[in-house]
Amino acid sequence: MINKKLRLVIHGGAGNMTKLMSTPRSIQTHHKVLQKALTTGYAILKKQGSSIDAVCAAVKILENSALFNAGYGSVLNHQGKVELDAAIMDGATLKAGSIAGVSRIRNPVLAARLILDFSKHVMFIGKHAENFAHRHGMKFIDPESLITQQQLKKWKEVKARKHQEAEKHGTVGAVALDCNGNLAAATSTGGIINKLPGRVGDSPIIGAGTYADNKTCAVSATGQGEFFMRTVFSYDLAAQLHYKKISLKQAGKIALSRLADLGGRGGFIAIDKQGNIEMNFNTQMMYCGYAKENEIIIKI
Amino acid sequence: MINKKLRLVIHGGAGNMTKLMSTPRSIQTHHKVLQKALTTGYAILKKQGSSIDAVCAAVKILENSALFNAGYGSVLNHQGKVELDAAIMDGATLKAGSIAGVSRIRNPVLAARLILDFSKHVMFIGKHAENFAHRHGMKFIDPESLITQQQLKKWKEVKARKHQEAEKHGTVGAVALDCNGNLAAATSTGGIINKLPGRVGDSPIIGAGTYADNKTCAVSATGQGEFFMRTVFSYDLAAQLHYKKISLKQAGKIALSRLADLGGRGGFIAIDKQGNIEMNFNTQMMYCGYAKENEIIIKI
Repeated sequence: MINKKLRLVIHGGAGNMTKLMSTPRSIQTHHKVLQKALTTGYAILKKQGSSIDAVCAAVKILENSALFNAGYGSVLNHQGKVELDAAIMDGATLKAGSIAGVSRIRNPVLAARLILDFSKHVMFIGKHAENFAHRHGMKFIDPESLITQQQLKKWKEVKARKHQEAEKHGTVGAVALDCNGNLAAATSTGGIINKLPGRVGDSPIIGAGTYADNKTCAVSATGQGEFFMRTVFSYDLAAQLHYKKISLKQAGKIALSRLADLGGRGGFIAIDKQGNIEMNFNTQMMYCGYAKENEIIIKI
Repeated sequence: MINKKLRLVIHGGAGNMTKLMSTPRSIQTHHKVLQKALTTGYAILKKQGSSIDAVCAAVKILENSALFNAGYGSVLNHQGKVELDAAIMDGATLKAGSIAGVSRIRNPVLAARLILDFSKHVMFIGKHAENFAHRHGMKFIDPESLITQQQLKKWKEVKARKHQEAEKHGTVGAVALDCNGNLAAATSTGGIINKLPGRVGDSPIIGAGTYADNKTCAVSATGQGEFFMRTVFSYDLAAQLHYKKISLKQAGKIALSRLADLGGRGGFIAIDKQGNIEMNFNTQMMYCGYAKENEIIIKI
């Protein structure tokens, strides 16, 4: 155990507060799931497990919750279907796995992990990504089983109003630092409600929504994905640490201000190699929290 | 006209020299197409056209040539089909367009351009990307019409030998600097011969194979895509210029050495905002060339 600063940070999306979200009941239910994700992931770190296992476990719990826009309970696209994207990166090896446009997989983050572990490739899309996961033991599911009544209702409301701009909450992500000093990052999302089919955002793009390098930091982003892609947001944080030798907090501020200059909104979570934690956003709120030295903090 | 340093740089892929490629006849035919791409693109710059128009025109010519692994004449995947990826980025606005896994489009770079021009999104995949292009006036083609006898033969040879590692030449790309000082980059590819269907490489990933920002540089990469994705190669060049204030040549060397450290091989072309041109690679060869001040240089 070369590193005693174990860290796990998670997010459940950034966006603007709606009335529904600000009820005590909604806050409480979100709090509970975030806590479970943190507790489960951090338990792995405490047992000297790897950061990559910790981020997988945390993101899997958030995917399985109907509350967040990832895995089960994701938003529906323009055709009323769920289309999922996810990525994971190992800061020790710079190996990465990424999938986009899948719907027959229950846990996209675990499919991305299979690519990281078993493929020389980084990214697979659509049914081919699903087939890759299936060949490596993952069960196909009925895409309809990912749809919740609540999301169906929400989608119908958005369609009825005939506008595409709706609240876009709930991309999930995790970053971790383990006992060997290894960083990892993972992100998973259902994208934007009523999105055009086939649209891919920043989550599965290495360097945009997800990045990890032991030399610098691990990052997972959330928000208006296109702006994170155009600014190569997550890698920009790493590049600032590496080339400018500034603090993670400072680099995060600069990256968010570049995003805002283009008109982009969202947030990120990050851990640097020294164990500093940063959670920042330029939206009204972000679901996030962290676990370190037996302390669990959740912010909504 | 604020900028008199008009620049166009193109590449036709990096790799290892095969016997077939080193014949005078092969060199001559490649030379001819590269020259046409440079002449056509540079003519646009000279008429005070935009860098984005120039890179489109140059890449379109390379896509339409059977000699390169992009558009017509692309390599076949494991199922004997063509799957194309492309991206384009405007350094003035940081707007970008990207497509992956398409086969019913003759010129993927022009489809990526349609996304840049007409969508708030950056990336579309598969049939949905094709449909987007179609809705904006692009003709569907028969995917079989992209297949050449030569590539079919090559693919059968690779299949017969039952190994997936074959020569991977011919991704194409262009970067340009126009009379208004605007940079642009575009990349187009058929990926890796006999690749698993659905595999996406670095070409369509903003920051990996393609990047442009007026503040720094425009980059198009070619080679073993996964390594360019994991190192976020193109944006790393831009980040080094921006944060370390070193020369493009120096930044390129460092980026290639990071790539080599992971075991990656390939090359890139780039122009910085001052008009400096860089073409570098760690493979045996790269098809590339540039046009500036009425001088056209082609290197094979």
